Amino acid sequence: MMENEVLASFVFFSTLLILKMYALAIITGQVRLRKKAFANPEDSLRHGGLQYHREDPDVERCLRAHRNDMENIYPFLFLGAVYSFLDPNPALARIHFLIFFVGRMVHTVAYLLKLRAPTRSVAYGVAQLPCFSMALQIIFALLKHW
Amino acid sequence: MMENEVLASFVFFSTLLILKMYALAIITGQVRLRKKAFANPEDSLRHGGLQYHREDPDVERCLRAHRNDMENIYPFLFLGAVYSFLDPNPALARIHFLIFFVGRMVHTVAYLLKLRAPTRSVAYGVAQLPCFSMALQIIFALLKHW
Amino acid sequence: MMENEVLASFVFFSTLLILKMYALAIITGQVRLRKKAFANPEDSLRHGGLQYHREDPDVERCLRAHRNDMENIYPFLFLGAVYSFLDPNPALARIHFLIFFVGRMVHTVAYLLKLRAPTRSVAYGVAQLPCFSMALQIIFALLKHW
Repeated sequence: MMENEVLASFVFFSTLLILKMYALAIITGQVRLRKKAFANPEDSLRHGGLQYHREDPDVERCLRAHRNDMENIYPFLFLGAVYSFLDPNPALARIHFLIFFVGRMVHTVAYLLKLRAPTRSVAYGVAQLPCFSMALQIIFALLKHW
Repeated sequence: MMENEVLASFVFFSTLLILKMYALAIITGQVRLRKKAFANPEDSLRHGGLQYHREDPDVERCLRAHRNDMENIYPFLFLGAVYSFLDPNPALARIHFLIFFVGRMVHTVAYLLKLRAPTRSVAYGVAQLPCFSMALQIIFALLKHW
Repeated sequence: MMENEVLASFVFFSTLLILKMYALAIITGQVRLRKKAFANPEDSLRHGGLQYHREDPDVERCLRAHRNDMENIYPFLFLGAVYSFLDPNPALARIHFLIFFVGRMVHTVAYLLKLRAPTRSVAYGVAQLPCFSMALQIIFALLKHW
């Protein structure tokens, strides 16, 4: 794996993005504690009482950011892996991965810091470009082979 | 990868399903714009005002369809990949992938077009059959080997 | 694949966890039927009328458990696969996978049975330990190689 520089680059950015998702989960937990807003009655009982079994806009925001990651980063893990085995140009492949990585980092920051629209949407859209590109290259490679 | 026809078939249907998920995300955005229902205050401010920071049944429907995809298509990406390396009968493998693909396409259409129950549930159930089959074949292959 | 005992162990636990997620989806459906709480009007019409198009705390609980699985088990499928190819110590690798597997099983049981806090959170935290460990080992392996 390490000998294939495209694959190594893909694994590197993918693992960083997964760590970013883990960080988002930790942030969500911290916001729950700080805002005292727990999704489960049993959690609220441990932190002051059932009145804290409630929703909170900042918690919901974290959950939406995390959900959007699941909608976009997980497909990248598949597409990027397949694409890496298509023997792409290494520099071009790295640009694909880097654009996705930066786009998703900006997306999370824009979400959590409530940056003015359309910052977050633009970051989402930019990150989708390499994904569409990889998906189409995979389909074309298969069609050419058949 | 291209030389392994089972794997190529798996990658083909998987990539199409990921593109289908991307299309669903775009549809969700279009429904948000058309119904003027935004999950984030900053988005609503850009599209007419905070009164459009609200939920909408059609948007929620898109989100449920997308979530159900995440619950089912992502595990398929794993099971299908492993199963492809178990040296299965190519025709049988293709039937597995095709049933899943058709089931999930019908599921999305039934969800978005609000088709009468149990259309959507049947499509979900049918798509689960090849997944259970692949999961069990993987487990049996491992147990036989040990 | 079968010849690589680390990979075989990873695939075994991963497939069991996916089957566990499928079981959770079936449980969610059963709770919907028993509590008569359907997310879609078309489903409620088939089961007694539009008054059953409603939310239910037990259904929401199932959905939260399933969502948490998606947030954690899917990244494991990626990290565990990459880690398995890093030629790790087989015994140590198996301990990683086993801790994750047990942690996630306990997490689901604690969620569904509403076990007293912090049982569920501890199970989540324990299961994250091997994930962080694998992610860091992947990053270090890449940095060492470059």
